Amino acid sequence: MKKILLFLLLFNCSSGDTNGQNALMEQYDLMPWPKDITENPAKFLINSDVTISINADDTSGRVRNAAVNFLRRLSNRTGVFLNEGFPVAAKDGTIQITFDQVATLSINTDESYSLDISDSSITIRSKTDVGATRGLATLLQLTQHSDTDYYFPGIHIEDAPRFVWRGLMIDVARHFQPVGVLKRNLDAMASVKMNVFHWHLTDDQGFRAESKVYPRLQEFASDGLYYTQEQIKDVVAYADKLGIRVIPEFDVPGHASALLTAYPELGSKPGFHYAIERYSGVFDPTLDPTNEKTYEFLENLFSEMAPLFPDDYFHIGGDENEGKHWDENETIQAFKEQHGLKTNHDLQTHFNIKLEKILSKLNKKLMGWDEIMTPDMPTTAVIHSWRGENEGVPNGGSLIAAAKNGYQTVLSNGYYIDRMLPVAHHYSVDPIGDIKLTPAQRSRILGGETTMWSELVTPLTIDSRIWPRTAAIAERFWSSKDVNDVHAMKKRLKTVSFNLEELGITHIKNRAVILRNLTNNQDISALTTLSKVCEPLKVYQRNKGGIEYKSYSPFTLFADACVVDAEDAEVFNTLVSQFVNGNDSIQTELLYYLKLWSNNHNAFSKLSKNPKLLPLESLSKTLSETAEVLSKAVAQEKISKADLNTIEEHLKTLNKPFADVEVVVTDALKTLTGYYETHYLAN
Amino acid sequence: MKKILLFLLLFNCSSGDTNGQNALMEQYDLMPWPKDITENPAKFLINSDVTISINADDTSGRVRNAAVNFLRRLSNRTGVFLNEGFPVAAKDGTIQITFDQVATLSINTDESYSLDISDSSITIRSKTDVGATRGLATLLQLTQHSDTDYYFPGIHIEDAPRFVWRGLMIDVARHFQPVGVLKRNLDAMASVKMNVFHWHLTDDQGFRAESKVYPRLQEFASDGLYYTQEQIKDVVAYADKLGIRVIPEFDVPGHASALLTAYPELGSKPGFHYAIERYSGVFDPTLDPTNEKTYEFLENLFSEMAPLFPDDYFHIGGDENEGKHWDENETIQAFKEQHGLKTNHDLQTHFNIKLEKILSKLNKKLMGWDEIMTPDMPTTAVIHSWRGENEGVPNGGSLIAAAKNGYQTVLSNGYYIDRMLPVAHHYSVDPIGDIKLTPAQRSRILGGETTMWSELVTPLTIDSRIWPRTAAIAERFWSSKDVNDVHAMKKRLKTVSFNLEELGITHIKNRAVILRNLTNNQDISALTTLSKVCEPLKVYQRNKGGIEYKSYSPFTLFADACVVDAEDAEVFNTLVSQFVNGNDSIQTELLYYLKLWSNNHNAFSKLSKNPKLLPLESLSKTLSETAEVLSKAVAQEKISKADLNTIEEHLKTLNKPFADVEVVVTDALKTLTGYYETHYLAN
Repeated sequence: MKKILLFLLLFNCSSGDTNGQNALMEQYDLMPWPKDITENPAKFLINSDVTISINADDTSGRVRNAAVNFLRRLSNRTGVFLNEGFPVAAKDGTIQITFDQVATLSINTDESYSLDISDSSITIRSKTDVGATRGLATLLQLTQHSDTDYYFPGIHIEDAPRFVWRGLMIDVARHFQPVGVLKRNLDAMASVKMNVFHWHLTDDQGFRAESKVYPRLQEFASDGLYYTQEQIKDVVAYADKLGIRVIPEFDVPGHASALLTAYPELGSKPGFHYAIERYSGVFDPTLDPTNEKTYEFLENLFSEMAPLFPDDYFHIGGDENEGKHWDENETIQAFKEQHGLKTNHDLQTHFNIKLEKILSKLNKKLMGWDEIMTPDMPTTAVIHSWRGENEGVPNGGSLIAAAKNGYQTVLSNGYYIDRMLPVAHHYSVDPIGDIKLTPAQRSRILGGETTMWSELVTPLTIDSRIWPRTAAIAERFWSSKDVNDVHAMKKRLKTVSFNLEELGITHIKNRAVILRNLTNNQDISALTTLSKVCEPLKVYQRNKGGIEYKSYSPFTLFADACVVDAEDAEVFNTLVSQFVNGNDSIQTELLYYLKLWSNNHNAFSKLSKNPKLLPLESLSKTLSETAEVLSKAVAQEKISKADLNTIEEHLKTLNKPFADVEVVVTDALKTLTGYYETHYLAN
Repeated sequence: MKKILLFLLLFNCSSGDTNGQNALMEQYDLMPWPKDITENPAKFLINSDVTISINADDTSGRVRNAAVNFLRRLSNRTGVFLNEGFPVAAKDGTIQITFDQVATLSINTDESYSLDISDSSITIRSKTDVGATRGLATLLQLTQHSDTDYYFPGIHIEDAPRFVWRGLMIDVARHFQPVGVLKRNLDAMASVKMNVFHWHLTDDQGFRAESKVYPRLQEFASDGLYYTQEQIKDVVAYADKLGIRVIPEFDVPGHASALLTAYPELGSKPGFHYAIERYSGVFDPTLDPTNEKTYEFLENLFSEMAPLFPDDYFHIGGDENEGKHWDENETIQAFKEQHGLKTNHDLQTHFNIKLEKILSKLNKKLMGWDEIMTPDMPTTAVIHSWRGENEGVPNGGSLIAAAKNGYQTVLSNGYYIDRMLPVAHHYSVDPIGDIKLTPAQRSRILGGETTMWSELVTPLTIDSRIWPRTAAIAERFWSSKDVNDVHAMKKRLKTVSFNLEELGITHIKNRAVILRNLTNNQDISALTTLSKVCEPLKVYQRNKGGIEYKSYSPFTLFADACVVDAEDAEVFNTLVSQFVNGNDSIQTELLYYLKLWSNNHNAFSKLSKNPKLLPLESLSKTLSETAEVLSKAVAQEKISKADLNTIEEHLKTLNKPFADVEVVVTDALKTLTGYYETHYLAN
């Protein structure tokens, strides 16, 4: 019932736009939505005889890899026993793939493709092998079924991306993420046609890449949690097979606590006790930009790392350096004076320009967070725009400025998924919006990246923070700007999110793991109900000041089981909004939720208690009591002054954080109460 | 309610043995059960101040590794925010670990330890670093809690293993298992003190180790699914840190389809089209033991592989060679005659003896499945006993014979977890039993290994086939022979199984993943209920003859979501047995299950259908109707002839397999029906 209800809700309140695209979006859960799609009456049956021919010279192995993965997923999804589990040598496969050439991945790689489905055959055509893999990803998303059959619908698609840079950044410094976590996320990225993995390898909390030149980095700055060079090569090769470029980030000169733990002589504050940082935040340890040894070190390090990362782009971070240790160092102050560097920004530009030369010798383009964009910075640098209103600058501002100033640029402001904001928020951020740009300026806006900063995520929870929201952002990067209907997106995202489980993404299944742990292996239904109306605190309200959690604190708490866009809250909030606007017919659905919650504390109370459950007791009880009073009001169509007082008191409580979560039905409960107060107040 | 009920059931029907051990087993969920354990009234509180000191020279890093993992798991399990997430340098940690020396892993490694818990401190003492890690595993299992606190109970333990070889074999040939799967299973092994990972690297379906000398092996015999040498080293080092030895297996001369796909010139049938095998079973492709090139190849290969696996033991398989291709090859027949080798067994012994010399030069002990034990085989070989009544020899027979014949030996017969038999069965198999052996003979019985053959398991399901049963078998290998109470084991296993989720073991969480896939993301409660009374077909009845499934067939079916020792069936079957033996008081619990099932088809029917659900329709319906009739009989204390006829028909249906599962409450339903027929037959 709930499922059908959700569907109706979404489409009842979708915009008045009833053109062909919206009709198609109701039918097909494609994401990102393709450029051009037309239907025909054909139906290609998925049975044992499905075969794939690769009718091109697949020297990269990318298409074979994609075809094998496609066949496995198709078989697992449909239960169909295929006769052939690998591409066939003959050219007469029922699915035929042709492409013109194998690509070397770059921002110029052509990813366009066409897809044709008829009754008896499917054809994917593309300019490059990468384009063909994008076509296979689309085809898999088209899987349909009746009661008795799985099939692909008759369809013609012409598709190509809007932006050439569609990235996900994973911070593996704050919490290390094993190779398996990265690989499954690369698979997930490819499934929604993302093509850049930005690997944030170093920060105050750890240096995660093995250096043979400077082995103290992994020995003293990683707690033993780092990628060997072989593992790096493995991840890069794995990504390449999926058509994903890998951009490494070595964050300098700030965010250097770990690096300086290994090599303190490069620091800006002699005698300072450098140590791997356990808290979160912005810290003082900074490389000394006046020390020639610093450049020698970075040149050697970058020379060692460059061949591991074949991509043209190389990220040097450059963010959040407040220069406190520079201010405290007389030699550095003298150097500034001597070189006419007025501010610490000037000094950092001096540093950046030297790095740019080192990287240029290695045939790498320097990329950095937007702080590197200073007047003297050459336009060969690439600006990664991240700051916004939260940091005192206009949202997305530096992106347009960078493009106008002649820099290539990538947008992350608006795509900070660690801020735990709703998918609709991120989906609404367009890199360009209505701004008028010259063709040259436009071409410098490469695209965007979602950023998974990992202060509060571990391998157990990272997937549920990245997905499914990143899939919707991937659509923003690939699809036309006018593909922006939130309701249609959410309906499609539901299926995309579910299908991510095929790739081992743990965003759905690990909720139960955490709740089982919280209950010490009791029935988790009461906690599950609670978790569906709670969301983790947003915009860094969890771990305020960065000192509540250390990197080794438990991330197996109730907040870790909760996700953004809490599912029951999504439905309930819409119901309430429709109900108070006069749609009486959904009273039953409304009561379903109110009763679910009013009964829930009874189940919660029956749990044998433990210290982890204690902080949830008042949340459970208050929500239950509120829902009980309200459900009586709805059922009896009257509310008393005493009831109103009770609810008001409870809502005050529900408005506060509990155990690092917020109850995201509180506003709707308030709205509903107000509605009953206005229309049904009894004496 | 169900949890408490289960607990009562288990202890109501436990044996009359009420000695101290049984009382302790009720209280502590230790597995394997330690040698000697005594309680004291102390209570060590788990709070932020818990610290660990390692007061010994931990040059291997094993104890630090174990201590860090211990602290993470303790924190995640309890929700306690520790001040110190790593061992402290000072010697005054609240948990102090001392050991005499670092071990080089071998069958002689001392794993004993003692553990003392007082109010304010915990001490672990051992001869070796490995022993200390075993002590930490025990300590973590002792975590207790009240409503408001977590604590360790006052206890003194002296512990040491009964057998030196406590292994798990994973077959990565039939279905490849990525490094992450192996690592999490190694973690799980260490948590129950297992110490041998037997890595079955090659078989007809794939050759999974990278060779630089013979690269065609991975290029043509692996479908791209193999471990690089760096990955092998990584896994071996990871295991070593956990005190786990790694024994590689390169299965020769049979099981060689993959190897011969790469190097057909070494095969026994010239002109035969060798190809990677997609089915399961025993196949003909066999190395040619009369070809000197075969030995040259194996000597080069083993010489390349030996340094990757530092352990003394090296497994060459040697099983299930029927020699069909030898019989068909005249040159081989001539060779036999020429060398006085009467049978193919003699020829294989000739082969084995040559391998034994090759391995001996490499300082390796040859180990092989029990077919290698022929009269001429030198006693330097190690016999891996696997055949039993299923293969026409007495169960465990070759183990004792091997020990008496002077061979070191390891038992796997009885521990074939891929046969999907109940944990109680495996737990009841003792390697030695009541057989009288001389001390020398006894010392040759090294221990045992559970075998995870992977014809029917993928990374999605492998954990649920290994665990939790392997934890109980681990107890058989470690603990005293008289630790054998099945009910006490099952009660402890429940907690151990739950705690395995901390290590990322997927045996619990992936059931929901498969059921979601089966329903295409609908409510899975109806299927969950069904899956709790169904078990996958046993003893190779699934995939009869090896030709129903290919290696790339879907293993995302209902049978893949079901597990051995189906949980509701376990409880219901016990309830019925007690009820028909006169315990009327449990009628309510009995009715709970009957009503659960009788209502279940209603929920199943509401699911939107798809082809994967079709085979479950009649299972769901028949179980529901049977339960409905029976629940009426139980509630009304009468049953009619017509009801009996209905049930009889339904039970005939339920007795047959559905979609590769069996309904394991069928016998209990029959018993209950019989009881009502005898006592409550109405006209």
